[in-house]
Parts: sequence; structure tokens; C-alpha cells
Amino acid sequence: MIITYKRKAQYHETDKMAVVHHSNYIKWMEEARVHFLDKINLPFTAMEDANIFSPVVSLTCKYQFPVWFDDEFEVRVKAVKYTGVRVNFEYEIFNLTKNKLSATAASEHCFTSKEGRPLSVKRANPDMHALLENCIK
Amino acid sequence: MIITYKRKAQYHETDKMAVVHHSNYIKWMEEARVHFLDKINLPFTAMEDANIFSPVVSLTCKYQFPVWFDDEFEVRVKAVKYTGVRVNFEYEIFNLTKNKLSATAASEHCFTSKEGRPLSVKRANPDMHALLENCIK
Amino acid sequence: MIITYKRKAQYHETDKMAVVHHSNYIKWMEEARVHFLDKINLPFTAMEDANIFSPVVSLTCKYQFPVWFDDEFEVRVKAVKYTGVRVNFEYEIFNLTKNKLSATAASEHCFTSKEGRPLSVKRANPDMHALLENCIK
Amino acid sequence: MIITYKRKAQYHETDKMAVVHHSNYIKWMEEARVHFLDKINLPFTAMEDANIFSPVVSLTCKYQFPVWFDDEFEVRVKAVKYTGVRVNFEYEIFNLTKNKLSATAASEHCFTSKEGRPLSVKRANPDMHALLENCIK
Repeated sequence: MIITYKRKAQYHETDKMAVVHHSNYIKWMEEARVHFLDKINLPFTAMEDANIFSPVVSLTCKYQFPVWFDDEFEVRVKAVKYTGVRVNFEYEIFNLTKNKLSATAASEHCFTSKEGRPLSVKRANPDMHALLENCIK
Repeated sequence: MIITYKRKAQYHETDKMAVVHHSNYIKWMEEARVHFLDKINLPFTAMEDANIFSPVVSLTCKYQFPVWFDDEFEVRVKAVKYTGVRVNFEYEIFNLTKNKLSATAASEHCFTSKEGRPLSVKRANPDMHALLENCIK
Repeated sequence: MIITYKRKAQYHETDKMAVVHHSNYIKWMEEARVHFLDKINLPFTAMEDANIFSPVVSLTCKYQFPVWFDDEFEVRVKAVKYTGVRVNFEYEIFNLTKNKLSATAASEHCFTSKEGRPLSVKRANPDMHALLENCIK
Repeated sequence: MIITYKRKAQYHETDKMAVVHHSNYIKWMEEARVHFLDKINLPFTAMEDANIFSPVVSLTCKYQFPVWFDDEFEVRVKAVKYTGVRVNFEYEIFNLTKNKLSATAASEHCFTSKEGRPLSVKRANPDMHALLENCIK
């Protein structure tokens, strides 16, 4: 299951090379991930209300083609692995205006309480566990 | 009492006009304000530990001359008014590399608890009140 | 003529007070301004291709009510003054999720070449001048 | 040769988890890289004046321990590989206030002209090539 998040690149996201600064791709991955979880009925706000936070454990991003100001892009996200205590996402950032793949990326997340204590979603919240398990199949 | 905060403009702060994006000046005002409060022995962390937060109520910024990547700049901050429930700061952002005034700015702040309830520093914390009163004189 | 720009607040826009950091409102004003100019057939990209840049000369923002993560907000923009060499915008940032006005703001812009030389849109590009004049009436 | 870049975490770099948002580590890597190149007498500004840009080709970051507001941190950078057309950096982000390693990271860069054409520093600028070769040894 791939879920797509789409918007335009903003002026304030560009840098003096006249393209989107590479750090913004990391923000776009987050925006797309939040959108993905919304779409599988597991909104971030509901997770955090249930005291389940999902900090980034690691990420990689390979930059292939720029995104310019005002270009429309989409981020195609999928959850590729979920163990109950970790979840992994993969991303393609596609420049729709230039019809080119801009980047591929991946992120891994654990789950913690607000205080930062690691937790198992499987044990802490079986309903949320089921939703995450389901989106991998 | 004017306190000066100094650093270099970062690459990620530029935009496609090849100068620092105007939204970063707002961040620099905050960095300089945090530095100012440190210097008067009222660190932000101590205030927040005492459950005193100081959200921005209003700000203005007049942009006069750009700051380019790698330019050194300083922000000259002073507290210009303090009533026990509000504090006002004024700022000059000076491009040291180009020896030109880049911007003048001002911000007003109220005080609240973490939950956002307005509070009087005068009543909530007389020691912190004295430090703020003192830096106006 | 008021033009409305709408989206959700992102996780990366929040700060440790758990609300959107005040510097992001300045970015939202820009996003809404770019959207406004698109809607009046004067896209930023076309202006910049015609070597007309519009740096911010000054801005003010009054913060009245927070925007939280995932809140939907809209920015209502109007051009309130245009002289051929300067243009002024006013903004209302409205928290749609909480049904409260979050901020009112204003910005003034001049026009320059890419090299930063001031220019008159009236003289440099009569078609663009007409579009800007028209949105004030 | 490891070069160290040091500063404090800013308020505007935090998010609603009350720690520095993970996207800022990517900005810190850049700040440290710019500092590294300064120290080996190859400032970014000189490279870009010579029409040599160094976009990020890929990056990875492993997050191990948070950085909180006002924590002092340092980024320890080294250049680990340089081929004349590519350069690789490795980073350790160390939370000095909490005395814990916060992240390890890596980035790879190619070289291009302002227009984005790939170029060999070895051929384009033998002096700069020598400086880069030298910092690997």
C-alpha cells in the first residue's frame, strides 16, 4: 500500500543554489508520514493522545534531481516493516513539474512514551498495533 | 543596557535571492533574546522550570540591507519596557561583514504558565521580577 | 478582494511549547502571498523570470491564539496599497480547527532586479503593473 | 583530521516532543561542514566564487540520544574519502551538556557548476583539489 502526499515547493524552502535545500526533504518525509498514518486511521494526534510517540531512529536520503521553487512534487510513502516495537518507511519524492524522480529515502522509528521510555505498541495498544500490522501486508 | 549576540549566517538560511530569508531574522531575534536573558541571570530554562513561559504577543521587523551567506552579524538587544505582565525588546541586526545596519525590530511578550494561562511575574516570582525590572533602568 | 490559502500545521513547525513556533507565521504569510499572486495571474515565477523581485521591506505580526499541530488554518490575504514601486499586504491567520483568529499581520514590499537595484513595476512591466493595480480596487 | 564545531541548541529548533527536531541535525551537519572547509582554507564562499558547488548526493543519520533546548553540542567532522569528483564526510553529534553521543551521520557530495553541470575539482581547480586531497591523509 503506497500513499501519496502532494504539494508545491515554497519560496522559503529554497537556498542560494536556487533549489530546495536538502534539509527540507527530511521535513517532507515527516509530512508524508503524518499523512500516511492519517489515511490508515492512525492519526499522529491519536497516537500522541494515547502517549505513543515515534521518534526517528535513523534515516537515509539519496538526492537525484532538484526541486525548484513552485514545482509540484509528491511523496510516495509505504510502511515496509513493522515489528511491534519498530516501524520502517520508504519514500519516493517525485518532481511532478519536471517529471523526474528527485529522491529516494527511508526512515526507521521506535515508539516511546512522552518521557522517552521505549514501549511496544503491540502491548500498549492492540488496536493501533493491528492498524500498523495491516498496512504492511 | 544593550547586550550583543553574534554569529555567522548559515547556508541553510539563504533563499533563491541568494540572501538570508527574512523569516530567519525572527529566529535571530529569539536567539538574541535568549542570550540577553542568560546574561542578566534569568535563563529561559530557569524561567520555564519555574513554569513561566513568554510567548510573543507581537513583533515588527524593518529590513534595510541584506545579510549574505557567511556574513558575520550581530544582534543588539535591549529590554525597553517591563510592567510585571509584559516585556518589550528592541533589536538592531547589524551586518558586521558589510558594516551596514540590516534591520531594526521589536517584540512584545506576555507571560503564561505551560498551559497558557496568563500570569504576572511580579506576583509569581519576585526574584525574576527584580531581574527584569533591573535591566530596564 | 480577499484570497484564502489553507493547509494544516506540520509537526516540524511546532516548538517545545507544543504550539506552532511564531517564526512560521512569517513563512505562512509568504506562502499565502505567493498563492495570492498566482490567483491574480501574476505568479512569482513569472515576475522573477521578468527580473522583478519583491523583497520584504517591513512586516508586523500580532499573535492572538495558538495553532497546534495538525490544526487546519487559513490565511486571508489582501493587497491594500500599491504605488508602482511598493505593495502592501494584510493578512488574517485563522485557526479553522479551533474556530479562532490566530493572528493579524501586514507586510510591505519593494521591487528590485536580481542584483537588488530598486525598480518601478509601472515602468518596467506595464502588464504586471495593471494586474497589481487591479487587485487593489 | 577531525574538526569540531560547537554551539547551543536554539528554542526554534525544538518541537512538541520538547527536543530538537530531527531535521535540524541535517542543518547542523552542513554548518559543521562549512566550518570544516573554512578550517582547511577552502571556504565555501571561495569555492562558489570559483563556480564550484557541492550538492548533497546522499546522507544518513542515526539518532541515539536527544538534544534539548539550550544544550551545548559539538559536531565532529572528518572527510573520509575524496576522488576528485566526490567527497564523503562523517559526523558525530555529541551532546556536551548531557555528555552523551546524540547521533552519527554521513554525507556524500558531488561537485557542479552553478548551472548544475557535474565537474571534477581535480581538473577545474588543482589548488582546491590539493586542499581536499590533503585533508584525507
